Amino acid sequence: MTQVVAGVDLGGTKIQAAVVQTGDVVGQARHPTPSTSAAAVLAQIVDSITGALADAGVPATDLAAIGIGSPGSVDRASGHVSRAPNVAGFVDDVALGPTVSRAFDGIPVTVDNDVRAAITGEFRRGAGRPYRDLLGVFVGTGVGGGIIVDGRLLHGRGNAGEIGHTVVRPGGRRCRCGRLGCLEAYAGRMSIEQIARHRLAKGQKTKLFEIMQRKGRDRVTSSVIADALDAGDDMTIELIDEAVDALGLALANAQNLLEFEAVIVGGGLGDRLGEPFVRRVAKAMARDLRCPGAPPAVLPTELGDLSGAVGATILIDGG
Amino acid sequence: MTQVVAGVDLGGTKIQAAVVQTGDVVGQARHPTPSTSAAAVLAQIVDSITGALADAGVPATDLAAIGIGSPGSVDRASGHVSRAPNVAGFVDDVALGPTVSRAFDGIPVTVDNDVRAAITGEFRRGAGRPYRDLLGVFVGTGVGGGIIVDGRLLHGRGNAGEIGHTVVRPGGRRCRCGRLGCLEAYAGRMSIEQIARHRLAKGQKTKLFEIMQRKGRDRVTSSVIADALDAGDDMTIELIDEAVDALGLALANAQNLLEFEAVIVGGGLGDRLGEPFVRRVAKAMARDLRCPGAPPAVLPTELGDLSGAVGATILIDGG
Repeated sequence: MTQVVAGVDLGGTKIQAAVVQTGDVVGQARHPTPSTSAAAVLAQIVDSITGALADAGVPATDLAAIGIGSPGSVDRASGHVSRAPNVAGFVDDVALGPTVSRAFDGIPVTVDNDVRAAITGEFRRGAGRPYRDLLGVFVGTGVGGGIIVDGRLLHGRGNAGEIGHTVVRPGGRRCRCGRLGCLEAYAGRMSIEQIARHRLAKGQKTKLFEIMQRKGRDRVTSSVIADALDAGDDMTIELIDEAVDALGLALANAQNLLEFEAVIVGGGLGDRLGEPFVRRVAKAMARDLRCPGAPPAVLPTELGDLSGAVGATILIDGG
Repeated sequence: MTQVVAGVDLGGTKIQAAVVQTGDVVGQARHPTPSTSAAAVLAQIVDSITGALADAGVPATDLAAIGIGSPGSVDRASGHVSRAPNVAGFVDDVALGPTVSRAFDGIPVTVDNDVRAAITGEFRRGAGRPYRDLLGVFVGTGVGGGIIVDGRLLHGRGNAGEIGHTVVRPGGRRCRCGRLGCLEAYAGRMSIEQIARHRLAKGQKTKLFEIMQRKGRDRVTSSVIADALDAGDDMTIELIDEAVDALGLALANAQNLLEFEAVIVGGGLGDRLGEPFVRRVAKAMARDLRCPGAPPAVLPTELGDLSGAVGATILIDGG
C-alpha cells in the first residue's frame, strides 16, 4: 500500500484540492466555494478531497493525512478557524479540522494559514526552491503575503507577511480592514470590483460587467479582469495600472527593509495575468529600490493554483 | 591581567568609544567627528579609544580586541569602509580596521555596520533583552534600522533593516538617496535642517538657527532641535510633527509585515528627545497597525549614546 497525503487550499472563490505522493501531485480537484453556509463549504472541501483521490486513482484508505490552508484566524492546535469574512459562515468559529477528519475515518488533519501554505509550497516545491530569503505576495480576492528568512517561514505573532495591509497611499482608498491606503485596497480583486462598480455608477464606461455576465459569473473574477484587459477596457487598464504601482511600492519597501533574494507573485489574479503582469510589477518595484542595481528576482509561481494545496501538505504535522 | 575590549561608534557628528569588561562599560570617551579628512577621523578614533582606556584606568596592553561600527559600505573581511558620505574622506575606500589595529600593536579589529552594531547592543545588553523579534530604528543625521528575528540579526544582502529608505510619502520630499518620500527625508536630522533652511530663506520664521549659533554649533544638532522645541518654535514643532508621522507610518508598515515583539527608537535625535518622543511615535504607529489591539512594545534605548559602541564589542570576531 502506497500512502498519500491530501492538501486543500480554501479560498474565497474556489476550493483546490491536491493529492501528493512522495512530493509529486498525482491528483487534483477544484470546485467553487459555496456562498451559502459553513456546512456547505465543509461538504465541498470533503468532496474536493474525494475528487482529487479519484483523479489520482487512489482509494481513501490510502490517505495518511490532510493539510488545509485556510484564510482567517487559524488555531493550529484545535484545527478551528474563525474571522474569515470571504468564506460563508467562517466569520464565526468553524471546527474545520475535526469535521474533515471525521469524514475520512479520523485521519489527522492539520489546518494552517492559507498564504503561509502557499509560500511554503512555492519555497519547497516551486519557484522559490533556489532561494533562502523569499517574499511571496498572493494577489487574489485580497492580497496576502508570506516571508521566508534564511530558509524558515516567519510567523511573527501569527500574521507575519501581511504585506496587503502595509500602507502605500497614506490617506488613500478605504481598505476592507478599515484603514486608508493599504496595498489590498489597490490590488485586491474585491476592491478592484468595488471601485469599478462605483465608477460605473458615476457614469464612467467599462465593459467589465458585461464580460462578467457573458462569462456567467456574479463576481469579477481574475479571468474576467484578464478578458477586460485583452478587450482594451480603459477602466480596467487604469485599475490594473494602479494595482501594479501599489504592488511595486509595497514590494520595494519590503525589499529595502529585508533584502530578499527573490519575490514570488502569485494568487488568483497574479497567476491569471501571469508573466507580463509580474514583469510590470518588477519594473514598478525597481523605481523605489534603494539598491536598484541589485534587485531581487521577481518571479511568477511555478505551482500556480496548486501552491496553497501543495504547501498545505508540507505543513502537515510531522510531514 | 584582566583583558578588556573596546567598541567604537563612528558617527557623522561624533565618535563614541567604550571600554567593556565582561559585559560592563568601564570607561568611555566621546569626541566630535573631524570634518577635514579621513586621516583626521582615523586619528580621532584612536584618540577616543585611548581616552576610554584612560577613563577606565586600564593600560592599552590589556586591550584584547576592538570593534568598530561604521556607516557606509563595510567589508567585514578586510576592515575597509567606503561610501560613507557623512564622514570626511570616507566616500573613498578607507583602511579603517588595519589602520586602527596598527595603532594598537596589531590587535584584532572588527569593523561592522554602525546600525547593526547599535541594534545588537540594545538586543544583548539594552532595552531589547526581553525580546526575540525586534526592530531598532535609529534617528540621527539619517535614519537607520536593524532587525532581529528569532534572536538573530538579519543581514539580507548586507543592508537589511534600512527602514530609513522605505517610502512613506509617495512623490514626497526628495531624499539624499535621490528617491522621493523616504522616511529619512522626513525624520533625518540633516533633512530637517535642510527643510528649515529652505523655509527660512522663503521668509518663514524660526529660532532654530539662532539657537544653533547661541550653542556655538555649525549644524542643527539633536540638542539644538530639543531646545527649539522647548522654546516653542513653530517651524521646529511642525517639522518634528512630520517626522513623528513619517516614523509612525514606517514602523506600522514594518510591524504589519513582520510582527515584532518590540520596537526600539534610538539614535542621536531619538535619544535626545527621549521618552516623550518615543511615546508620540508609538501613538502615530498605532493609527496604521493592522492589529492595533496587539501593538509591539515601543521603547527608548537603554544604552543611549553607547548602543553602537557596546554593540561593536559584541560583533568582534569570536567575541
